[in-house]
Amino acid sequence: MTAFLDTHLQPLRDIFGEARVLWQAHDLVSYSFDASFGSYLPDVVVQPLTTDEVSRLMKYANRHLVPVTPRGHSTCLSGGPLPVRGGIVADMSRMNRTLTVDREDLVAVVSPGVLTAAIHEAAEREGLMYPPDPSSSQVSTIGGNLAENSGGPRGLKYGVTKDYVIGLEIVTPEGEIVRTGGRTVKNVTGYDLTKLIVGSEGTLAIITEATLRLIPKPQATETLMAVFDDLVASGRAISAILASGILPAKIEIMDQASIVAVENFEPCGLPRDAEAIVLVELDGHPAAIRDEIDRVRQSCEQYGAREVRVARTAAERNELWRGRKLVSPAIARIKPTKISEDITVPKSKIPLAFQRLKEIRERYGLHLVIFGHAGDGNLHPNIVADKRDQGEMRRVESAVADIFALAIELGGTLSGEHGIGTMKAPFLELELGAVGVEMMRRIKRSWDPNDILNPGKIFAEPGQRLVLTDE
Amino acid sequence: MTAFLDTHLQPLRDIFGEARVLWQAHDLVSYSFDASFGSYLPDVVVQPLTTDEVSRLMKYANRHLVPVTPRGHSTCLSGGPLPVRGGIVADMSRMNRTLTVDREDLVAVVSPGVLTAAIHEAAEREGLMYPPDPSSSQVSTIGGNLAENSGGPRGLKYGVTKDYVIGLEIVTPEGEIVRTGGRTVKNVTGYDLTKLIVGSEGTLAIITEATLRLIPKPQATETLMAVFDDLVASGRAISAILASGILPAKIEIMDQASIVAVENFEPCGLPRDAEAIVLVELDGHPAAIRDEIDRVRQSCEQYGAREVRVARTAAERNELWRGRKLVSPAIARIKPTKISEDITVPKSKIPLAFQRLKEIRERYGLHLVIFGHAGDGNLHPNIVADKRDQGEMRRVESAVADIFALAIELGGTLSGEHGIGTMKAPFLELELGAVGVEMMRRIKRSWDPNDILNPGKIFAEPGQRLVLTDE
Repeated sequence: MTAFLDTHLQPLRDIFGEARVLWQAHDLVSYSFDASFGSYLPDVVVQPLTTDEVSRLMKYANRHLVPVTPRGHSTCLSGGPLPVRGGIVADMSRMNRTLTVDREDLVAVVSPGVLTAAIHEAAEREGLMYPPDPSSSQVSTIGGNLAENSGGPRGLKYGVTKDYVIGLEIVTPEGEIVRTGGRTVKNVTGYDLTKLIVGSEGTLAIITEATLRLIPKPQATETLMAVFDDLVASGRAISAILASGILPAKIEIMDQASIVAVENFEPCGLPRDAEAIVLVELDGHPAAIRDEIDRVRQSCEQYGAREVRVARTAAERNELWRGRKLVSPAIARIKPTKISEDITVPKSKIPLAFQRLKEIRERYGLHLVIFGHAGDGNLHPNIVADKRDQGEMRRVESAVADIFALAIELGGTLSGEHGIGTMKAPFLELELGAVGVEMMRRIKRSWDPNDILNPGKIFAEPGQRLVLTDE
Repeated sequence: MTAFLDTHLQPLRDIFGEARVLWQAHDLVSYSFDASFGSYLPDVVVQPLTTDEVSRLMKYANRHLVPVTPRGHSTCLSGGPLPVRGGIVADMSRMNRTLTVDREDLVAVVSPGVLTAAIHEAAEREGLMYPPDPSSSQVSTIGGNLAENSGGPRGLKYGVTKDYVIGLEIVTPEGEIVRTGGRTVKNVTGYDLTKLIVGSEGTLAIITEATLRLIPKPQATETLMAVFDDLVASGRAISAILASGILPAKIEIMDQASIVAVENFEPCGLPRDAEAIVLVELDGHPAAIRDEIDRVRQSCEQYGAREVRVARTAAERNELWRGRKLVSPAIARIKPTKISEDITVPKSKIPLAFQRLKEIRERYGLHLVIFGHAGDGNLHPNIVADKRDQGEMRRVESAVADIFALAIELGGTLSGEHGIGTMKAPFLELELGAVGVEMMRRIKRSWDPNDILNPGKIFAEPGQRLVLTDE
């Protein structure tokens, strides 16, 4: 038993019972990482089931100045659930009792531990849709999606997680229970705490319940794949589609490195010699999208697509999407260490961003793969490397810094949907300026004066920089 | 010259020049009221033209502890621009130089003094739409819309002002210039200051520029009017439309008192004996909405509409909307004092809300008129009275308190789109609880430690209550 456990194990068992306080080495290791880089051992893990338990936890932690890091299923790509200062991890994934869909009010009420995919299914059973669809939705909890304001491919037409959250029950860093927003879309009663909490990466409150806005499920879907010999031309085709007055549900892109990785991993019949594949999905009224998919085809052909395929059946649609879904697992096979970036640029800058990312790849001689949600400018340049190769990792550090600088230079942002967490914290001032960061810190300090809740995230320590090597 | 002017006139002239510092009695009176209740004289009015001037103003005001109240064209219905503690009014309406629409990025960049209607026009010239459409849009400034997070009839399908703001330039209460967000829809870099500022009623920052998201303009519109003999049945028809999978751009309602007021004001051929008229507008692809308008008609007929009319031409469409647009001016003629409320209830509670509002009308024997954006549950119960009749005004005070209690009881909110301002501040705790209000106050204090920027709004003074009489 550590000194930490000598002091805190029994009081935590008094709150959670013996079975829901985990402290053995193998448990702590399981809670030491997420889908990003680095790992940090907590001192103890607790598994709350009720709001009251979360409240008691935060009051206890404040009294004893112990850090608390909330966590769902830790699919996070920016380090949100990493207990970087040790202390207590609050595993919220077992708080998953509530999932009700109200067809009349067009809302769902959910516990934080509910799987995102379960919300999709519950909504669809009522003829409704919960649009946010991050690629981890089969395994991620809604609590994590809310903390990080997850995005996904439907951002172009439907926005992101935040756009569908209209009410929250939260526990403040000091253990008070507060309800924000409600069951109505229109609400201007006081400051919008709901949208402040969503995306605050678990640093301002622990979410214990959420009310989500649902919409009628679109009646029909059309899917198209276009193959381009030139990456920059594909960017121009995307701009042309968006300028034509059509708002697709999704516009996704894979560059040649993504295509080759997929074909090496699991052949899908994708053309290895193409520089880009663009996938477009429309949803809505069947008559409307039949007309619109023809116009999308014309835009692609006009900007030099060498081949355009429109799916006629659900099976064909799944086949078109299969390659895109395999990109992440495929590139993870190339080399053991994957650095996933998440910049977003204004729509008009998409072709230029492709060009400049190619230059960064050449400059550092790295395996840089580009794919992502091109329609909303949210690109995922992924670098695959081997963290045992210190020289390569130093080149990765430089390339990542260049990618961030590129995003800012093009009027974009460091992070479109993954969050800042630990790795991007040193770059925050680059985008927001010193005063911008200070105004955010003021909110954090006023809500969490003891810096108890998920400390070490978003805001960099003095002198902190991105380190991927073992230095 | 007052003591205030003796001290502050010359320093303010040093910032703004002589012509843009107003201090004569007739000027001060012009800046003492908005479209809500009550009036307060400022000590002086300044008219900034640049962000730098606003920054210098706030630095000066902080040094000398003088309140500053920002203001657009003061169409506000909740007292946002009232200088309740005197001091300086910052008239932002002359800061109106920038209005650029970028068709590729689907954004508009605007100065705070630009008219909302001018943004609508500029977007439409490019085949785009800026959806938020508060009824004052012909005269309101976008800065005021942003401060109050204005709504309007399109909230049902398109959301409110906040949903279209992706970036801001602001001046903090201490005079620092900060940029929040950017030109991309996806952005999770740090806390969402953009959505915190929008709707904060000018208490956290002065907005000096905004980047607004635009969408492709819908190709076609269909409009339908349904007449009901029973108000509660009309609520059920609205619920049925929403449950059928159709998302109209607008669903508006007028009760019998509204209909009679309009017919007395300017006859439009509306049936005086009907208990409710419902107006539904669909927009989108022409084939889709032709099909959908038929289904809306069926829902109305199924729930007892005695007459349903679908507009065939633009002229017919305007004719159907004419009566609805006349409600506000028509009821203002009945009695001299109009108290406009703004509750919002969950969609399923719309019929019950109608029933209970009828009961409140009977209980206090008041002239209470109900109209509003029924599709998103945002109702505008308006009470017309005569402020010289103290007994009637006391009954109005009680009725307003009952309306707020009703909204909360039905799971709704005090304010859907008008804001809290001065009049609703005493009721804030009713909805948010003491801790909820305290967490908002912490943000205010951390950003504006001297309580310089628009003091006296949102948060009540100890013991403050709603007073409409001359007591």
